[in-house]
Amino acid sequence: MTDCQEANSPMELYEKLTAQGDKVRALKTDKAEKAEVVAAVQMLLKLKVDYKQTTGQDYKAGCPPSETAAAVTDNGPAADGDGGEDNVDPWNVSTTNAKGVDYDKLIVRFGSSKVEKELVDRIEKVSGQKPHRFLRRGIFFSHRDMHQVLDAYEKHKSFYLYTGRGPSSEAMHVGHLIPFIFTKWLQDVFDIPLVIQLTDDEKYLWKDLSLEDCHRFAVENAKDIIACGFDVNKTFIFSDLDYMGASPDFYRNVVKIQKHVTFNQVKGIFGFTDSDCIGKISFPAIQAAPSFSSSFPQIFGGRKDIQCLIPCAIDQDPYFRMTRDVAPRIGYPKPALLHSTFFPALQGAQTKMSASDANTSIFLTDTPKQIKSKINKHAFSGGKDTVEEHRKYGGNADVDVSFMYLTFFLEDDEQLEKIRQVSV
Amino acid sequence: MTDCQEANSPMELYEKLTAQGDKVRALKTDKAEKAEVVAAVQMLLKLKVDYKQTTGQDYKAGCPPSETAAAVTDNGPAADGDGGEDNVDPWNVSTTNAKGVDYDKLIVRFGSSKVEKELVDRIEKVSGQKPHRFLRRGIFFSHRDMHQVLDAYEKHKSFYLYTGRGPSSEAMHVGHLIPFIFTKWLQDVFDIPLVIQLTDDEKYLWKDLSLEDCHRFAVENAKDIIACGFDVNKTFIFSDLDYMGASPDFYRNVVKIQKHVTFNQVKGIFGFTDSDCIGKISFPAIQAAPSFSSSFPQIFGGRKDIQCLIPCAIDQDPYFRMTRDVAPRIGYPKPALLHSTFFPALQGAQTKMSASDANTSIFLTDTPKQIKSKINKHAFSGGKDTVEEHRKYGGNADVDVSFMYLTFFLEDDEQLEKIRQVSV
Repeated sequence: MTDCQEANSPMELYEKLTAQGDKVRALKTDKAEKAEVVAAVQMLLKLKVDYKQTTGQDYKAGCPPSETAAAVTDNGPAADGDGGEDNVDPWNVSTTNAKGVDYDKLIVRFGSSKVEKELVDRIEKVSGQKPHRFLRRGIFFSHRDMHQVLDAYEKHKSFYLYTGRGPSSEAMHVGHLIPFIFTKWLQDVFDIPLVIQLTDDEKYLWKDLSLEDCHRFAVENAKDIIACGFDVNKTFIFSDLDYMGASPDFYRNVVKIQKHVTFNQVKGIFGFTDSDCIGKISFPAIQAAPSFSSSFPQIFGGRKDIQCLIPCAIDQDPYFRMTRDVAPRIGYPKPALLHSTFFPALQGAQTKMSASDANTSIFLTDTPKQIKSKINKHAFSGGKDTVEEHRKYGGNADVDVSFMYLTFFLEDDEQLEKIRQVSV
Repeated sequence: MTDCQEANSPMELYEKLTAQGDKVRALKTDKAEKAEVVAAVQMLLKLKVDYKQTTGQDYKAGCPPSETAAAVTDNGPAADGDGGEDNVDPWNVSTTNAKGVDYDKLIVRFGSSKVEKELVDRIEKVSGQKPHRFLRRGIFFSHRDMHQVLDAYEKHKSFYLYTGRGPSSEAMHVGHLIPFIFTKWLQDVFDIPLVIQLTDDEKYLWKDLSLEDCHRFAVENAKDIIACGFDVNKTFIFSDLDYMGASPDFYRNVVKIQKHVTFNQVKGIFGFTDSDCIGKISFPAIQAAPSFSSSFPQIFGGRKDIQCLIPCAIDQDPYFRMTRDVAPRIGYPKPALLHSTFFPALQGAQTKMSASDANTSIFLTDTPKQIKSKINKHAFSGGKDTVEEHRKYGGNADVDVSFMYLTFFLEDDEQLEKIRQVSV
């Protein structure tokens, strides 16, 4: 950081941004072709993201990058939204669109790759299994390096799976199951080890909860996770509060990661501010560490080179962008990712289902009767103006929450399509 | 913090530094009086220290302060110096005064209490032992809450000792022994448990060293520490890299502390900047955790209420000011402290002995012959202008490094006083 070259880049970026802003204004004034304007705006947005990541500050015309600590006034690249409609980061997901977040835009913004039909076909070919409905229906819609994982697998180089859960309440809801259901399928078809991190330390740091409660939630949630049916011989479920204090190798990886990430970087990625506690600031290293096989010598016998595949909801991607940035600098392979869409709240796809609001969620502890009542009472249908019309024409499948849930849980493609037809 | 105004001071300092560098070169070219050159160089050095504290960067001629490395404008109470002569924080100790740091001013600046004769007498009374020479001679000169510790001890409420070492090299030097020699005396006279933390994780985060080397240094240093003769049944020496990954209770306390300290606070206390890695930023919690008895259930059986007394050099006080601030908020007693002066470098009391400069230090691995040669060659005597005069009048005991070393190591008070008389 004392190198002169590197130090100039915030100013260079600032100058590029200023120039690009001028260019966009000129194009608009000259009424240039729409495609040209769109391209220039996209470049401008990209530069803004780069600037924020580099400086931890928002770009402000006429105010060059300051030497003092920049407070982040919004939540970083994960939240600056094209047009400000979608807000996606590890702690908040919301959109103004009833159909849900614009996932294609998210792929562009996060710099990940779309799960194309070609990739789904390839997974089918390599695994010899019909792709899971989450792949067939675009629920796992985005990825990083999946082709590389499959290339290696075809050459008999195996990989392992890592997913997790932040245990903020005793009861999990059905939305929490999505990554676990899919991870179980991946473990079954590829026959590989799986590690599951319960970030009880994170929940303690972020929420007004005691350490004891967070740890108890981790234990309770583990029971629901176990019920998904993972291979008992190939699955390791751990609480951070236990495992951080039980594995010198895990802690060594945490420290390695912590040495290679600055506050400026986590400020840019997660939107941390100077008022955040030092526990939050250093936590991303703890979520990153399970991405490296050497964190689990009891499973991988000290091998450092086994690649990790992380199935998770896309809001967790910021952690793993950071992890992938650090990996080569500490001599480890970058983890690959498969990202899912969010599971909609009962009230509609503008927000994801959240355990902290009981009326938006169907809990694993709810009885069938309670579930029926919640669906009837709260599930948004986007239907017609009168009950008669609604009965006659049905809901609008694009925004109907009950139908969305069926896309997650109903295995039969034909039946699902029939229901969609009826509702249109 | 995105304010444009604040950003100017690093640049101002940079310009002053550049001008001062020019001045020094001009004086040398003009063959100016030695005293004038020395004064100009000292000012240059002072500006460099200020620059580093303000920007977090080393000054490089021709390379203005970068915008990424931000920006503490002072180092808080630990470093802002009355009149700017003394610079004391956990990573730097320097003064322009040949007699060493002004410790009375430091007491005022840090807000600690002076070890008065009354306290020394009380320690003698309570322990029933002649006070250690470090107490008799004002080497442990400052404290926090020592009277409270003695009050409790008189009521049969015991305490435990905690001290530590940052293992940055294989060999320790004699200066490193000071807290250990004194801690051994405290353990002997009070017959209490002792924990010794080797912060190999800290050294990895701060220095250009591998994890493996830092851990190896910790093991090597532990041998020298053991040689001080602590009670084997009441002493626990641990490496952070080992113990953090071996004690869920220790990690739980680290997380509790991390939840209760913000980046703003560590920035004020330690001078961290936005360019510092997240490992440095969260490390103070790891040095704080051994101050609480619940971090060692294997020693204290899960008790949370046993008070801790920390003998250490005063440059470590910032860590424990932070710890004392957090303690009541997480339900633990504040640790008490006894602070020592610094052990002077061979070249004089302007800096403390430092392992990173072999010519300033006497290592525990040096042979008697090497030690004699180092003292004769490098030890500052503040003596007279000619060898004849020096032989006749002796050195100046106020600044004579050899005499200072005798105040640390010569037990006999009368003999020490005789030597002082001769040298005046």
